[in-house]
Amino acid sequence: MQLQYWRHRVHAVAPESFAYRPIGHFRTPHKAIAGMPIQPIGALGVSGSIVLLPGFAQGLQDLDGFSHVIVLYHLHQVRGHSLMVTPFLDTQAHGIFATRSPSRPNPIGLSVLRLAGVSGCCVHVENVDVLDNTPVLDIKPYVPDFDRWDADRIGWFAGKSGQAVQHRSDTRFADAPLAEEDLPVA
Amino acid sequence: MQLQYWRHRVHAVAPESFAYRPIGHFRTPHKAIAGMPIQPIGALGVSGSIVLLPGFAQGLQDLDGFSHVIVLYHLHQVRGHSLMVTPFLDTQAHGIFATRSPSRPNPIGLSVLRLAGVSGCCVHVENVDVLDNTPVLDIKPYVPDFDRWDADRIGWFAGKSGQAVQHRSDTRFADAPLAEEDLPVA
Repeated sequence: MQLQYWRHRVHAVAPESFAYRPIGHFRTPHKAIAGMPIQPIGALGVSGSIVLLPGFAQGLQDLDGFSHVIVLYHLHQVRGHSLMVTPFLDTQAHGIFATRSPSRPNPIGLSVLRLAGVSGCCVHVENVDVLDNTPVLDIKPYVPDFDRWDADRIGWFAGKSGQAVQHRSDTRFADAPLAEEDLPVA
Repeated sequence: MQLQYWRHRVHAVAPESFAYRPIGHFRTPHKAIAGMPIQPIGALGVSGSIVLLPGFAQGLQDLDGFSHVIVLYHLHQVRGHSLMVTPFLDTQAHGIFATRSPSRPNPIGLSVLRLAGVSGCCVHVENVDVLDNTPVLDIKPYVPDFDRWDADRIGWFAGKSGQAVQHRSDTRFADAPLAEEDLPVA
């Protein structure tokens, strides 16, 4: 049955698509999408961890020297995607690539998290705005010379991005209809 | 033949893997890996563009209000992966997740780029450190409240990250052997 599922997917996505596998999973106190913080600044001090799958622990060597990490993860509870979305912090619709909304063509989430420590295959993190059990795709060290930029224009987020401190999620993107067929085939 | 290839992949990666499709491709002056800049700070002023596939252009609406974007892309020229790597900026090996090296279990690249403009399905960017024709997975607006953090510890990058201004790539990660079979199955 699994194979049948995959045959269907494969037919739909070939020729140019990329199969990624989780390197591990988040363990966080956020068990449901409704009421979750929508960004790390809304989750300051919230602890969680990334538990790597067996065999990946060696890749964590020397990570403990960093204060922050960039984590990429698969937004596994998002259904379908939309090219126009009304994000949590606004009442106007914007193009999906001008928002941080999860219902993206490729549902990859990105959070810069405070690194609290590394033990074995566990990466302990803080400021966690990620749903429990979320599959993790990559962990990268946060390096200010590469990642910290003086953005002088932040579009529709002007006067709004700070509201992410207290704003909480609802289920609008988990409930979105499946839009698989709408995706342009590469 | 394409289907045969995918059946093989599917068998290897099931049950938990994620198929992502490109939303578009980079057009950049970097035609070969050898000699490329390794980070945007080594490519200041270098112009390029992201050409979205037909059907995705609507998702760019309002992106032109931002000065910077985070671009996620598939590192299509990297072969295999390694859990321990000696990165461009060091002579010591480190765990892959403590580096920005491309030979990652999931070869997803991340660059924060200066946005020069949006026209139709084209996103014009600067500080481009990405190989020509690289498949793009996602574009997110860079929002300092979410993405700009005071990292007080940068591990082995201390005293070295600034060298990315002049350091150039070699082909060590393009030449790496395929390590597909070494990946733990999810």
